[in-house]
Amino acid sequence: MDNLPKASMESMRRVNEITGKQVPTFSIDMLDKDAFRDLFKKHKILCVMHFAGLKTVEESCHKPLLYYKTNIGGTISLLEGMKEFGVYNMIFSSSAAVYGSPSYLPIDEKHPVGGCINPYGKTKYFIEEILKDNCSAEKQWNVVLLRYFNPVGAHVTGKLGEDPQGIPSDLMPYVSHVAVGRVKELTVYGVDYDTPDGTEVRDYINVVDWAQGHVAALKYLEKDCGFKVFNLGTGKGYCVIEMAKAFETASGKPVPYKIAGRHAGDIASCYADASLVEKELGWKAKLDLAKMCEDSMVLAIQ
Amino acid sequence: MDNLPKASMESMRRVNEITGKQVPTFSIDMLDKDAFRDLFKKHKILCVMHFAGLKTVEESCHKPLLYYKTNIGGTISLLEGMKEFGVYNMIFSSSAAVYGSPSYLPIDEKHPVGGCINPYGKTKYFIEEILKDNCSAEKQWNVVLLRYFNPVGAHVTGKLGEDPQGIPSDLMPYVSHVAVGRVKELTVYGVDYDTPDGTEVRDYINVVDWAQGHVAALKYLEKDCGFKVFNLGTGKGYCVIEMAKAFETASGKPVPYKIAGRHAGDIASCYADASLVEKELGWKAKLDLAKMCEDSMVLAIQ
Repeated sequence: MDNLPKASMESMRRVNEITGKQVPTFSIDMLDKDAFRDLFKKHKILCVMHFAGLKTVEESCHKPLLYYKTNIGGTISLLEGMKEFGVYNMIFSSSAAVYGSPSYLPIDEKHPVGGCINPYGKTKYFIEEILKDNCSAEKQWNVVLLRYFNPVGAHVTGKLGEDPQGIPSDLMPYVSHVAVGRVKELTVYGVDYDTPDGTEVRDYINVVDWAQGHVAALKYLEKDCGFKVFNLGTGKGYCVIEMAKAFETASGKPVPYKIAGRHAGDIASCYADASLVEKELGWKAKLDLAKMCEDSMVLAIQ
Repeated sequence: MDNLPKASMESMRRVNEITGKQVPTFSIDMLDKDAFRDLFKKHKILCVMHFAGLKTVEESCHKPLLYYKTNIGGTISLLEGMKEFGVYNMIFSSSAAVYGSPSYLPIDEKHPVGGCINPYGKTKYFIEEILKDNCSAEKQWNVVLLRYFNPVGAHVTGKLGEDPQGIPSDLMPYVSHVAVGRVKELTVYGVDYDTPDGTEVRDYINVVDWAQGHVAALKYLEKDCGFKVFNLGTGKGYCVIEMAKAFETASGKPVPYKIAGRHAGDIASCYADASLVEKELGWKAKLDLAKMCEDSMVLAIQ
């Protein structure tokens, strides 16, 4: 179910092609209660994976009301609808953004939350609190929060992956667009961070690993797990320049870059302690940076 | 404008009687956009004092979704409506609850916020963040957040004040009901706190002082103040037993009490540093505990 503000039904067509299955898909706005009710009436739904929401940090700073209304209002509306139809299982797309600027590394799930500096991150944090309070009040709920680090890459076929228009704001599509010559050069924002090469360190997780983390969470919900929180990351951090070099290797093309000042509000390093999710869900990221870059290249050259 | 879920138009009739003015009053739900628009079309509105919201801590723990939807959804809807009609001035009813368990006393406006332990307090904190982000994104807004400590007492005529049904959950109406014999005895929850007499310490502010704080904030908004935060408290803390004794003096009646264990989640002491609001708004609480108790008695015996 998606109202497709920034996505396309083409992606679902490709999911069907890759899996050889027909995944029922509905073009519905989550805030449209009538359409929502109709869907829940017609289908037996065991669990909702809640990915809906606006997710661009910069836009959230300029249109905070839109973000709060869509993300928080949408989630409350969804929870009410689920309750109406007796559906009490949810996996929620949270974000490492809820940790704010890390007070230690790697970040485990006990790290303090709430120090978010932009409205996007705050919507994730506020929704986490709403889901937690809802689970405390009504014990029949099972909710798994997955705090995403940096999902990147593509399916090995290159048929699924991030395909932004214009100059991408996220690093990996940006680098891949440079590697295929669609963008002239990479701009590296900040080379004076306290990191191995001075550039920002992030925990990049391949989207296929990431998807399999959700399948593991789905199985975990069957245990009537209550309210649980897991990091979805690899546990490894990579610098921007490492990423550019890995792309040069994967593509056999140069990735020229220029250096610019830091982005306001960006943090130096952010990577997960991924031990709890491995212990509890039996899930672990399998694909390394080289493989993520290769798959991104397959996507970029299509 | 009030949808009157827990209030009565009788209060407004008494406001008109006391002031000798007819205050235009509308029985409208803030979430009813059509009614809201109609009101904003018909009247020239310079500032919104936003008191709307559910406010019972215990209920919020049992019905968190109702609280998040009403308080946060209501505020977002109100802000959108104000924007539509070019009204950019707001005074918002926040609460000392946003400070959570104080890390120092007295609490000034720079004290960290967000450590709220119940959904009611979180709704106040989340709304503060939404208002702050909205002011950052659109510079034409002027918003004064007033963080209330414990408003109590009544208008000197006894015609206006808190008049709960059944056993009151707030201390002052509880004590006054005991003083007039409507309730047998006061239960004191916790006598082993680290406070002068072992009972909880709070900063009680008379409702008339409190109302005058809002008038001062309204004048302050005329300066195009942007986003500002002030404590609305007296700066003095009183224990539960002090409060009971003051009521015995005010009423000439005994206030018997029994001792019980602490309420889960209650904090020992909470009182304001009220110097910033005095400096910036020129406002200061005038009425002392004895006067608050006298006025509450006038209300209770009616």
